[in-house]
Amino acid sequence: MKMAELSAVSGLSVATVKFYLRENLLAAGERTAPNQAHYGLEHVTRLRLIRSLIEVGGLTIADARVVLAAIDSDLPLQDTFAIAQRSVSEHIDPAGIDPSALDRVDAVLDGWLVSADNPGRLAAARVVQSLDEVGHTDACGWLGRYAHAAQLVAEADIDEIAALSDRAAQAQTVVVGTALGDALFRGLRRAAQEHVSALRYSADPARHHQTP
Amino acid sequence: MKMAELSAVSGLSVATVKFYLRENLLAAGERTAPNQAHYGLEHVTRLRLIRSLIEVGGLTIADARVVLAAIDSDLPLQDTFAIAQRSVSEHIDPAGIDPSALDRVDAVLDGWLVSADNPGRLAAARVVQSLDEVGHTDACGWLGRYAHAAQLVAEADIDEIAALSDRAAQAQTVVVGTALGDALFRGLRRAAQEHVSALRYSADPARHHQTP
Repeated sequence: MKMAELSAVSGLSVATVKFYLRENLLAAGERTAPNQAHYGLEHVTRLRLIRSLIEVGGLTIADARVVLAAIDSDLPLQDTFAIAQRSVSEHIDPAGIDPSALDRVDAVLDGWLVSADNPGRLAAARVVQSLDEVGHTDACGWLGRYAHAAQLVAEADIDEIAALSDRAAQAQTVVVGTALGDALFRGLRRAAQEHVSALRYSADPARHHQTP
Repeated sequence: MKMAELSAVSGLSVATVKFYLRENLLAAGERTAPNQAHYGLEHVTRLRLIRSLIEVGGLTIADARVVLAAIDSDLPLQDTFAIAQRSVSEHIDPAGIDPSALDRVDAVLDGWLVSADNPGRLAAARVVQSLDEVGHTDACGWLGRYAHAAQLVAEADIDEIAALSDRAAQAQTVVVGTALGDALFRGLRRAAQEHVSALRYSADPARHHQTP
């Protein structure tokens, strides 16, 4: 198909598709004339993936380029995971983290196989430090319950990957799941908060729409 | 204390403190001379809260103003929750959501007391729609396991609030917990992913630092 059709099928403007081509997120089409190229279904598929990572997962162009390269590579799945994690995590300077906050995070991760530079370990410690600063110094029970739920979610993530048979599909699921899983959990947490607080506090639970 | 001391104690520059004053996030000090004001401990406490919401929770100035006003109000806790949820959630146009994706989210929220306009319900449906687009159309099991974990997290959130005795502390915890809980869970999920994938896939689990 030509550029106009690729744009129509993918639901992205020609300018956006050309931008992704220039940024090397999307492979060039097969040139059929000096200013014309032919695109295939693999371009449509890739555009959907790029859109999902950027529009829903919130990745920057630079981060999307890094994770797409990891999907295309033949890196071991573990390394793809580490790349995906770093790409969707804010860089946190360990020097700015209070050691006591890190100790409390490590206490709830007791027995977990987690590298010292795991971006999530530092991010969690920064939240604990921030909670200290606003006076929630006794949040260890809360933290432990979050860690338990996080383990259930990680097991669901890994099972979803393990169910796939080929390396390319697994690598794509690692990247998509890491980026979109955050957004999915955030959404479900909002719904669950309304449900649990309505059960406990609402004078009028009927005003909450019972789904489905 | 004077402005210079307030800046030093709170760890924020004078320019930042003045910006928060201008933006009405922080109440004015008590004027002691035409160009001098006196600030109290309540200003230090409030600055820590603002910093936590903006720097760690990622709220915009406008959203921080809305949730701080909710903390200062005497609104019922349920309403404070709804305000906090909306402030930390991206606005999603329901018209852009595929009804079939919404149906699948509603199926996993079966029996939950959730309003049709809960921002999380729509956000979760948008993720499901995006997963469809990249070919993960059979993610319902994954979705259900996420919803179960989200309920555990919401119960931890509500218990943390219920343990507090006064309305002001509860309202602050609602806001801080909603904003910072997302960042905390995201971090712990990264750590859990490394742990679970190291257990299942790593040829060399010893390279993962075992905490603490």
